[in-house]
Amino acid sequence: MEKIIALLSGGIDSSTLVYYLAQNYEVWALTIFYGQKHAKELIAASDIARLVCKKHEIINLSEIQPLLKSALTTESLEIPKGYYSDESMKITVVPCRNLLFLTCAAAWAMSNSISKIAFAAHFGDHPIYPDCRLSFVQKTEEILREYESNIQILVPFINLTKREIINIGTKLGVPWEKTWSCYKGSEKACGKCGTCRERLEAFELNNLKDLIQYEAY
Amino acid sequence: MEKIIALLSGGIDSSTLVYYLAQNYEVWALTIFYGQKHAKELIAASDIARLVCKKHEIINLSEIQPLLKSALTTESLEIPKGYYSDESMKITVVPCRNLLFLTCAAAWAMSNSISKIAFAAHFGDHPIYPDCRLSFVQKTEEILREYESNIQILVPFINLTKREIINIGTKLGVPWEKTWSCYKGSEKACGKCGTCRERLEAFELNNLKDLIQYEAY
Repeated sequence: MEKIIALLSGGIDSSTLVYYLAQNYEVWALTIFYGQKHAKELIAASDIARLVCKKHEIINLSEIQPLLKSALTTESLEIPKGYYSDESMKITVVPCRNLLFLTCAAAWAMSNSISKIAFAAHFGDHPIYPDCRLSFVQKTEEILREYESNIQILVPFINLTKREIINIGTKLGVPWEKTWSCYKGSEKACGKCGTCRERLEAFELNNLKDLIQYEAY
Repeated sequence: MEKIIALLSGGIDSSTLVYYLAQNYEVWALTIFYGQKHAKELIAASDIARLVCKKHEIINLSEIQPLLKSALTTESLEIPKGYYSDESMKITVVPCRNLLFLTCAAAWAMSNSISKIAFAAHFGDHPIYPDCRLSFVQKTEEILREYESNIQILVPFINLTKREIINIGTKLGVPWEKTWSCYKGSEKACGKCGTCRERLEAFELNNLKDLIQYEAY
């Protein structure tokens, strides 16, 4: 089976992605710890990878932290409550995050003569995260071609909403209770940050109950 | 004075670069430890940065090592003797190295509203290292524009030979004895790897004596 490297955070989208890819590929999952407060997602990533991926590397790049200013990594910046569409959510953008992740994935791919990498950018990401847009994906493929490689970046969910992703994941048997989304990394999900709200809404729209525990919502 | 972020490895080219930039900019130097065997260059980078840079961050990303296959990082792969032009030197290419470094520099720039980054690609690098070519630099600028930033990448030495760089550095007073080039990281420079040979040759062409200690040459 052809190998593919997939970025896996442990959230809904990337967990569904590895299940989706595992139908046709040998999936090598890559998880990057970049100093995010919600390091709990790393455990979720491990749990998911164990089920459908051939390999899983968790790479600790958290010492990059002094270079990044974002509510997701900087202790003094609070994670905003609200919706992704809110202006206040911009503080959760991690500068160059997906470029960093895809660069790592590409390096791993080149070191192993793998020619496909994938990540779970989806429709809801586009307004706020520039590195989840198709133009970003295309330009990243171009820069990778400079390395005389021929790496293709697959983004099968780029035009899907979270509701549609949950629909696909449910059919594929993704164990949602093992995934983690909340930007705060507390024992229970906060239910109030952008990613919690988006998750809850998407489950509701699918008439499903989200089985992870929430502080409040 | 305008701020600029410069990649500083501690070798001849990047040390000359920070001296060159310091004439017109407040230089913030960035050094990445990516698991290279010649970690000794980090000390050189510190010594140089202390002299002309306003800030210096050394970021330890060495846990990326499992993703990289290169003689510079992989214990079981030996560093070849010979010249850069030799086919055997290809094993010293670190996959995606400059893309990784520039991504880190760009993230730091965006976090601090800095709009210029620089690195010391030079003419001798082009044949072997694809990420030292002008087309790579231009494509990297393009991908960074996706982040709604306007970051410019300066490569003032891209068409200069190492001989010319040493000529410039000498005029600027770069303390060569504090720089480090050798790919092996032993006490003395080996005198036989590609970077040692290139360094020795360039000093000779400038009728200068290289004052660092060599095992043999």
